[in-house]
Amino acid sequence: MEFRLIDRIRELTDQPRDDVKLGIGDDGAVLAMPAGQELVMAIDTMVEGTHFLPGTAAADLGWKSLAVNLSDLAAMGAEPAWAMLALTLPRADGDFVEGFAEGFAQLAGRYRLALVGGDTTGGPLCLSVAVHGFVPPGQALTRAGARIGDEVMVTGTLGDAVAGLFALRDPPHDDAHRAALRRSLIDRLTRPEPRVAAGIALRGLATACVDISDGLLADLGHICEGSGVGAELEAAQLPRSAALRELHGDDESLQLALGGGDNYELCFTVPPERVAQVQSTLAGIGCPVTRIGRIVDGAGVHVRAADGSPQAITMKGWEHFA
Amino acid sequence: MEFRLIDRIRELTDQPRDDVKLGIGDDGAVLAMPAGQELVMAIDTMVEGTHFLPGTAAADLGWKSLAVNLSDLAAMGAEPAWAMLALTLPRADGDFVEGFAEGFAQLAGRYRLALVGGDTTGGPLCLSVAVHGFVPPGQALTRAGARIGDEVMVTGTLGDAVAGLFALRDPPHDDAHRAALRRSLIDRLTRPEPRVAAGIALRGLATACVDISDGLLADLGHICEGSGVGAELEAAQLPRSAALRELHGDDESLQLALGGGDNYELCFTVPPERVAQVQSTLAGIGCPVTRIGRIVDGAGVHVRAADGSPQAITMKGWEHFA
Repeated sequence: MEFRLIDRIRELTDQPRDDVKLGIGDDGAVLAMPAGQELVMAIDTMVEGTHFLPGTAAADLGWKSLAVNLSDLAAMGAEPAWAMLALTLPRADGDFVEGFAEGFAQLAGRYRLALVGGDTTGGPLCLSVAVHGFVPPGQALTRAGARIGDEVMVTGTLGDAVAGLFALRDPPHDDAHRAALRRSLIDRLTRPEPRVAAGIALRGLATACVDISDGLLADLGHICEGSGVGAELEAAQLPRSAALRELHGDDESLQLALGGGDNYELCFTVPPERVAQVQSTLAGIGCPVTRIGRIVDGAGVHVRAADGSPQAITMKGWEHFA
Repeated sequence: MEFRLIDRIRELTDQPRDDVKLGIGDDGAVLAMPAGQELVMAIDTMVEGTHFLPGTAAADLGWKSLAVNLSDLAAMGAEPAWAMLALTLPRADGDFVEGFAEGFAQLAGRYRLALVGGDTTGGPLCLSVAVHGFVPPGQALTRAGARIGDEVMVTGTLGDAVAGLFALRDPPHDDAHRAALRRSLIDRLTRPEPRVAAGIALRGLATACVDISDGLLADLGHICEGSGVGAELEAAQLPRSAALRELHGDDESLQLALGGGDNYELCFTVPPERVAQVQSTLAGIGCPVTRIGRIVDGAGVHVRAADGSPQAITMKGWEHFA
């Protein structure tokens, strides 16, 4: 079982990388680090019922289990290189394996990422992926560098994935137009696009960076905690997709944008004098970016409504074991 | 939850390593590779009901989830450095966390291994650990180098862990002497000692190496397959503990030694002219070693009884999804 699945993924993900001295099939993989780089690594798990609904397509799981990990590398400004996969499956299921391998390989291929190790076991459906990437020494983006006066910026749009989850859980009877909008939100949930190129482009520009996995408030809160600062957001500035606004209205879409997790955009801080450079750099790689607030003295994240009053928050972050 | 557990393990495993530029608490860890080394990595998962019995002590799980991974590094001849942990727990349970952290830290401390990343999620009990170590370029031990005429050797004793599992599953009413023997077998199951020092000592001496996780026949079979050779074992030579022999008799203990998994000794091949050096090197680090057979032309593993006839095999290897 182990060998069949992992071999199938290897066939599909076979990446000609000189730095893989020994890949899948031994007790461990042997890798050559490029000179003058630091190694960045992260691990993330997806469990059926906690992170995805039972019945989710295997190809979507293959994609997403890698995407959430690449998003961690993106948040560090690292260039993806290698991955290992630990897959626990209730039974040996050829169709699942084929679908999973296909989705995983599709995303891995974009980044020339090699799967170098794996372990398959029997048990409740659970997917752990460990990823490894490179960053020049001292240039990793962390949560610790935000300074008072920095601008807070985000890539893409917020709140789409959690709206996609609501649509999947409780599918409404929609007309074709609204069904298409919902489909686009569900795609954000099932096939997130990690902001790898943006993370790399932000090296030397951003002072702190996180990916939005738990929700904007929670994840920007990590920057505030890591940097010993506070943040003030302007509700009106939060980038929301047309689909989210049309389906959920202004108030609800704002709450989803603030609290909704599983979104995998980057939230980062930039000194005011570098904002223009960030905007042009990200425009150059086709990555939308929006200023949403600033770093202030204090602690925690505060949100101001358009009239300047404190914005009411009705949806908190995304917490497992909450 | 995530932070509390991972922080607790970090407290217990805090290792002063200069190569950890950024540890737990950000989106990823940042590590500096030592110059002139290759990176070896492996991942292994333990699932309740598949790899351990429900009710297994948390400290034993913490130890073993790391031990089985260090055993993979040992089989590659690598020196342990860093680990990441993905822990899925049915509920936030402070006692479990404390016990798990303690067992993990106890083994990590022996090797100055730093836990640099982690992810904790809700779901059925499942533990994935990814480990990373170093080996000089080209010196990793693999499954592919065994040559016809090489001697086959193993460290320690075989079959103890599976006998420990039987004892745990179906505890007999024993006198105090036999209960103590069983306890020693159960310890082999719950607290395996990875042969890290032996693996490092075998660099440049062994031509191929595996750890015995699936059983001697299955794992030596991997060397045969990887190297395009066969192997002949002498049943009478298989090292068995006094406890195993006394509790299971000669015939049954032989079958357990051939087929029993979860044992984490090293099985390796050595050209005859290097056997004496291997023996003195391993004696120097207190690691027992035994010659059990030789590599031959052909395929697969064959076992000869003391009278030279083919040994009957009644217990096959340890396979999940069998």
